[in-house]
Amino acid sequence: MPELQIIGITDIPEIQPGDDLPEILLRALSQQGRALEDRDILVIKQKIVSKAEGRLVRLKEVIPSEFAIHLARQMGKDPRHVEVILRETKRVVKMDRGLLIVETWHGFVCANAGVDESNVAGQEVLSLLPLDPDESAYGIREKLLRQTGVSVAVIISDTFGRPWREGLVDIALGVSGLKPIKDYRGQPDAYGRLLKATEIAIADELASAAELVMGKTEGIPVALIRGYPYTLEKGKGTELIRPAEKDLFR
Amino acid sequence: MPELQIIGITDIPEIQPGDDLPEILLRALSQQGRALEDRDILVIKQKIVSKAEGRLVRLKEVIPSEFAIHLARQMGKDPRHVEVILRETKRVVKMDRGLLIVETWHGFVCANAGVDESNVAGQEVLSLLPLDPDESAYGIREKLLRQTGVSVAVIISDTFGRPWREGLVDIALGVSGLKPIKDYRGQPDAYGRLLKATEIAIADELASAAELVMGKTEGIPVALIRGYPYTLEKGKGTELIRPAEKDLFR
Repeated sequence: MPELQIIGITDIPEIQPGDDLPEILLRALSQQGRALEDRDILVIKQKIVSKAEGRLVRLKEVIPSEFAIHLARQMGKDPRHVEVILRETKRVVKMDRGLLIVETWHGFVCANAGVDESNVAGQEVLSLLPLDPDESAYGIREKLLRQTGVSVAVIISDTFGRPWREGLVDIALGVSGLKPIKDYRGQPDAYGRLLKATEIAIADELASAAELVMGKTEGIPVALIRGYPYTLEKGKGTELIRPAEKDLFR
Repeated sequence: MPELQIIGITDIPEIQPGDDLPEILLRALSQQGRALEDRDILVIKQKIVSKAEGRLVRLKEVIPSEFAIHLARQMGKDPRHVEVILRETKRVVKMDRGLLIVETWHGFVCANAGVDESNVAGQEVLSLLPLDPDESAYGIREKLLRQTGVSVAVIISDTFGRPWREGLVDIALGVSGLKPIKDYRGQPDAYGRLLKATEIAIADELASAAELVMGKTEGIPVALIRGYPYTLEKGKGTELIRPAEKDLFR
């Protein structure tokens, strides 16, 4: 009777550049009367990681290019916002109907390169994805380990759209402490039949599961997943990015 | 402190055509000393729904077409298997490198039209997706309601690949009892900023969350999700299928 719990961590204040996220997480947990346990998984929204890392651009400091001004008209966005999206873009995957789907410098394919409007201390800013979400996850995991002696896995999550299906789901940008893909190939299924091509993106599923307690309006940017069996292993969110040569939908 | 539980339902026997799934679920739950509660969500793997509904084709009764024989060589599959995939196909989305991504008659875009090898009573069969997964979900929900007086939502899940990302995740094929998409547009976020385009595919996230306790080898085809707040509403899995005119990646 496998069972897991997903717990939303409340009482996390608005994050400012330079904030010590692991410290803030531990404080919020203790306010809930909870402590981390070995093999817990922490799922943390990209937005607060980006804020803590200062991955922010003040809108008023951006000078848009001609191309950004042109696109901004189609997209109904501020040209400075579009300028920042283009700076975060390695390759445009699709540009149509006011939508801009790009490949970021990390290799993520998503709308608007993950650039998002935000507020920091009353100023209009744009938040960018962390420079290296795996490194962000690793840093948080290591600091929590040092402070508490407890080994948890960390997933940095973000909300992405998908082709063919309506609605967005949370996926894993950065991962530390577990393999993001569970590989069943060659194992027998419940009926003894060998499984052929079953690699499950568990880090994405964990991110989606965490979103269910976070919501969008509740100010819950962190969830704790307890009871999911995994082995402590090196793993990176970049393993979830399909290499160009394997991708039918480049 | 929002919290939800995901519980894998064990002791579900191998399903045969004609089996009464709601009856079998209730028996398995009671063997675990559990009972359904109002607002529980049951996530049920497509495979056992298809088996119960007799959506099976005996391999030895299939005569492959010339085109199926041709494709089967590229795909390294049995031509009869490919023949059945083609019969379930409305439109080929991509045919490359031995992979066949199609749109099914329901509108799902997936590999091999959801046709899967299976065993029923020792015979080689192919399982097809349910004819109408929303109807399947509705039927199970209604029967559980009649038998127990308890209102649960039901999601029929399947494992799908995605462009751009490695690994598969579980998504919702059929839904009954909840809206599959949570629409935050126009609501203020935690900082008072109006959310613009945030529709979350919660039914897909619930299916992914359920997969985490099911796995592929453990023979756990049903999960119970408890503690997720939702309002009882009409909703269909087909709402998750992006209409052609809105899809940039047809």
